[in-house]
Amino acid sequence: MSKLRDVLQLRVRYSETDQMGTFYNSRALEWFECGRTELMRRRLGMSYAALEGKGVFLPLVEAHLNFQGGARYDDLLDIASVIEMSGRARLRFEVQITQNTTGKPVVRGYTVHAFADPDGKPIRPPGWFIEAMQKRSALPEAANEEAIAEGGRAAGAPEDVL
Amino acid sequence: MSKLRDVLQLRVRYSETDQMGTFYNSRALEWFECGRTELMRRRLGMSYAALEGKGVFLPLVEAHLNFQGGARYDDLLDIASVIEMSGRARLRFEVQITQNTTGKPVVRGYTVHAFADPDGKPIRPPGWFIEAMQKRSALPEAANEEAIAEGGRAAGAPEDVL
Amino acid sequence: MSKLRDVLQLRVRYSETDQMGTFYNSRALEWFECGRTELMRRRLGMSYAALEGKGVFLPLVEAHLNFQGGARYDDLLDIASVIEMSGRARLRFEVQITQNTTGKPVVRGYTVHAFADPDGKPIRPPGWFIEAMQKRSALPEAANEEAIAEGGRAAGAPEDVL
Amino acid sequence: MSKLRDVLQLRVRYSETDQMGTFYNSRALEWFECGRTELMRRRLGMSYAALEGKGVFLPLVEAHLNFQGGARYDDLLDIASVIEMSGRARLRFEVQITQNTTGKPVVRGYTVHAFADPDGKPIRPPGWFIEAMQKRSALPEAANEEAIAEGGRAAGAPEDVL
Repeated sequence: MSKLRDVLQLRVRYSETDQMGTFYNSRALEWFECGRTELMRRRLGMSYAALEGKGVFLPLVEAHLNFQGGARYDDLLDIASVIEMSGRARLRFEVQITQNTTGKPVVRGYTVHAFADPDGKPIRPPGWFIEAMQKRSALPEAANEEAIAEGGRAAGAPEDVL
Repeated sequence: MSKLRDVLQLRVRYSETDQMGTFYNSRALEWFECGRTELMRRRLGMSYAALEGKGVFLPLVEAHLNFQGGARYDDLLDIASVIEMSGRARLRFEVQITQNTTGKPVVRGYTVHAFADPDGKPIRPPGWFIEAMQKRSALPEAANEEAIAEGGRAAGAPEDVL
Repeated sequence: MSKLRDVLQLRVRYSETDQMGTFYNSRALEWFECGRTELMRRRLGMSYAALEGKGVFLPLVEAHLNFQGGARYDDLLDIASVIEMSGRARLRFEVQITQNTTGKPVVRGYTVHAFADPDGKPIRPPGWFIEAMQKRSALPEAANEEAIAEGGRAAGAPEDVL
Repeated sequence: MSKLRDVLQLRVRYSETDQMGTFYNSRALEWFECGRTELMRRRLGMSYAALEGKGVFLPLVEAHLNFQGGARYDDLLDIASVIEMSGRARLRFEVQITQNTTGKPVVRGYTVHAFADPDGKPIRPPGWFIEAMQKRSALPEAANEEAIAEGGRAAGAPEDVL
């Protein structure tokens, strides 16, 4: 099975907290999105923006979240994401968010995505997408780990080419 | 089993759309919250704000979402919510969001909530909460339907007393 | 000068609070949008959605906010908005948000909007838009007040008459 | 006059776009917050989280925004912020957001903040805060530039030295 992993680090924004003092629950889905975006750019070698530019959209069809612990304003979080095909026509991202300094779990969950054209109609996953998944996931894990060690959602990250 | 139902109507805000032209996925969890808030005020006879005022919090522990169809800016949505106890120590809300004018499904899902004190420590559901659930759900369904017919998240809704 | 007024009532969502216990500052701009949406539907007789459907967009070019007081989860707010032309090619909305029960001020501000085509290019305000502004603002104030008394962001509000 | 500058880079999230295809207007205030957060951590040597931990809050009292150009999903933005005292009791942040790759302006604006205690009551700026502002802004600009060159909202940024 083709799988790709990535870890993104980000800090909780003030706008993401609520009056309970921790993050508001829906923010987790926005962090999942940040994780997907960087995983695709850094591991798959094609940004989601470029994918949409080619007319391929990945609308969310299912999401699940388990809230495991708090995260406060300015806490540094690790968003660990894994992408894989789910059946023939769907993509699945498994996500584990943890506190960077303590390793304590914050949210665990997954999202399932269809492939769609610009009008939202379901399409089959393009062959070049499947190939990219297979080719990239065949790379030795060490390469992945090295890339992760570069760390963070670095501003100066090398541009990825589709 | 004690169950209470409510239907809230709200319109999709421009701020809730994304560049795909439909609502951004995380907004569904915010709409679920609006549904819970009004169900508690209108069916349970105690607002969630009043509940927190008594030191009882309902942090989210689990959420699930199935995205079934689009909803665009200004679309009028029906948020149908059902509350029930889940085991002895958890609350569960089942939610179905549909297009008000066509009845087309938009999102289906549920949220599970723990009972916690102001420090976030788990507590047992207060006896008066369980009683309110039982007493209110024993009311004839007609009363519920009538209340729903008053409709909307009415600004002038009668204040509910705990 | 053509002016139209409207008052929308809405409740602060939990998702709109932050760890300071009041609403997060950017939510005010989202409430301003809710005020604009209902003012256009109820006073101008054309929804903003219908306006976009005719190829006329109103991108924000300037916004100003004075934060005057707090608002907590579930507080009922009055969003009082006034629309008027600003010069020949811009629309201006003046907004005052207050606590519904106490009348205490929460946020005061304004937004200025250009007229644009679907590609974002500036256009002149359509003649039919200017006429609607003039015709509607010539109606006796009493009619406006009556309409406001119907209150709230009513689900069953009369459909746009564009 | 004591002034400190910082440039933060961040990418537009999908959740921050709207159906017009660019970012929704209120997100600019959230990006301003990200700019303030990193400026304080990196230039002032004390994080805003640490400031709140000492009982000093900086509630927003005024904000102004000029929308100058679009920004799409995944665009890399430069958030350039300058902090200075405004009179004796207020802080002011001037912000210019530009496209990182083209330098095109996106949003320009400012925010004004009061000093408050944990109950929201106005307080005088603590002496140690004023001193930190003066001491840090006296550092040669080169030091600032060097720090900026480290770039990004780096995950491994030096911990606050408050």
